[in-house]
Amino acid sequence: MAYDLILLRHGQSDWNEKNLFTGWVDVPLTALGREEAARGGELLKEHQLLPDVVHTSLLQRAITTSHLALETADRLWIPVKRDWRLNERHYGALQGKDKAETLAQYGEDQFMMWRRSYDTPPPEIAADDEFSQIGDPRYANLGDAAPRTECLKDVVDRMLPYWESAVVPDLRENKTVLLAAHGNSLRALVKYLDGISDADIAGLNIPTGIPLHYQLDEDLKPMNPGGTYLDPEAAKDAIQAVANQGKK
Amino acid sequence: MAYDLILLRHGQSDWNEKNLFTGWVDVPLTALGREEAARGGELLKEHQLLPDVVHTSLLQRAITTSHLALETADRLWIPVKRDWRLNERHYGALQGKDKAETLAQYGEDQFMMWRRSYDTPPPEIAADDEFSQIGDPRYANLGDAAPRTECLKDVVDRMLPYWESAVVPDLRENKTVLLAAHGNSLRALVKYLDGISDADIAGLNIPTGIPLHYQLDEDLKPMNPGGTYLDPEAAKDAIQAVANQGKK
Repeated sequence: MAYDLILLRHGQSDWNEKNLFTGWVDVPLTALGREEAARGGELLKEHQLLPDVVHTSLLQRAITTSHLALETADRLWIPVKRDWRLNERHYGALQGKDKAETLAQYGEDQFMMWRRSYDTPPPEIAADDEFSQIGDPRYANLGDAAPRTECLKDVVDRMLPYWESAVVPDLRENKTVLLAAHGNSLRALVKYLDGISDADIAGLNIPTGIPLHYQLDEDLKPMNPGGTYLDPEAAKDAIQAVANQGKK
Repeated sequence: MAYDLILLRHGQSDWNEKNLFTGWVDVPLTALGREEAARGGELLKEHQLLPDVVHTSLLQRAITTSHLALETADRLWIPVKRDWRLNERHYGALQGKDKAETLAQYGEDQFMMWRRSYDTPPPEIAADDEFSQIGDPRYANLGDAAPRTECLKDVVDRMLPYWESAVVPDLRENKTVLLAAHGNSLRALVKYLDGISDADIAGLNIPTGIPLHYQLDEDLKPMNPGGTYLDPEAAKDAIQAVANQGKK
């Protein structure tokens, strides 16, 4: 007896393609991203891992990924829960910046610090920055608690309360849970589930569009540490590609 | 001060196009239906009628309509609630049957009785009919209460408890509510809201993809009886087309 949890990182977005830091900027999927999402749904179907409930962030690239995956898997009708705590890491002042230009401008040390440091966030985004979310109605209820930049530690700190209060209860009811989210909110969860150190999480990348299946025991510890990608070969190739981002 | 309720009938489905009785059979939208849904979202945006919450049936044609409309209106992030009580009328043994053939075979009196009688359902669908929903996991919790045919009165009877328990509380919180559903579940609601008689409801058709806006007073009575279509000209043309269904 195991609890089934499926993590799904959204497919390619406009800004993945353009190699820009995205964070909380609400960009759509590309045509490729939509295909990846549908392929994710096919994999769920092939493995008979049919979600009973889906949790998503408030960002359309995750929401549309879940829609397309569930459409392919014939599971559009399942209950849906959305929460900002599953959002991508807020990239602060880097939002909207080109990754390769940022790398060239600031050098690899600073660049990798911003991308992969566990506890050092980029500078805060200015309130009047065109890529700020201040005034966005979806975050109105957060008030001043709305982040203006985040490091991965911040993501862990805001994601875990949602995990405990919203996802765990669904798992305890023996529901197969699909969590459609982002590179960093999923890394935050994987860090917690697999007990990865602050240092080692820097080297962990999660590919887009390939469902990652965790079987959790009674204590919600992974029976398959690291999870199992439903398409392991594609995952291997894609993880390498993510690691090379910003180096093109 | 008024409560804002927006009704949206799904865009054209595969079986609308093929002129088959659909009911609870879970058919997808056509390309035209997807366009209609996106157009519905544009109308919401143009009229600044931005939903704070969406309620849908468990059928993909309504779910995908809401997704496409909300995508166009930049509101994919709002909370979602789904319930079988917003489903289309169960068409019983007629599900999967050609409307024109049924009209030819049974004659206009019987045909119009099945389509528009308030309280006479078509014959029940057989458990082993290929278009029966017996065994469909989305209705498993209904058990024997799952309908095997319905007249419009049955739809009213199962829809109103959802209206009272799930939709009204959202309205009372001053949320703009989008209800993405079906010809007959929306007719059932309109009958209730506008106090239309059992006889007169037969003549009321709701077009696909055009948001119908109700402003409700403190007693949840329409301040604009009959509601206001966000594209009145298109609605007029489409209502006529629906009325002619089965007569081609």
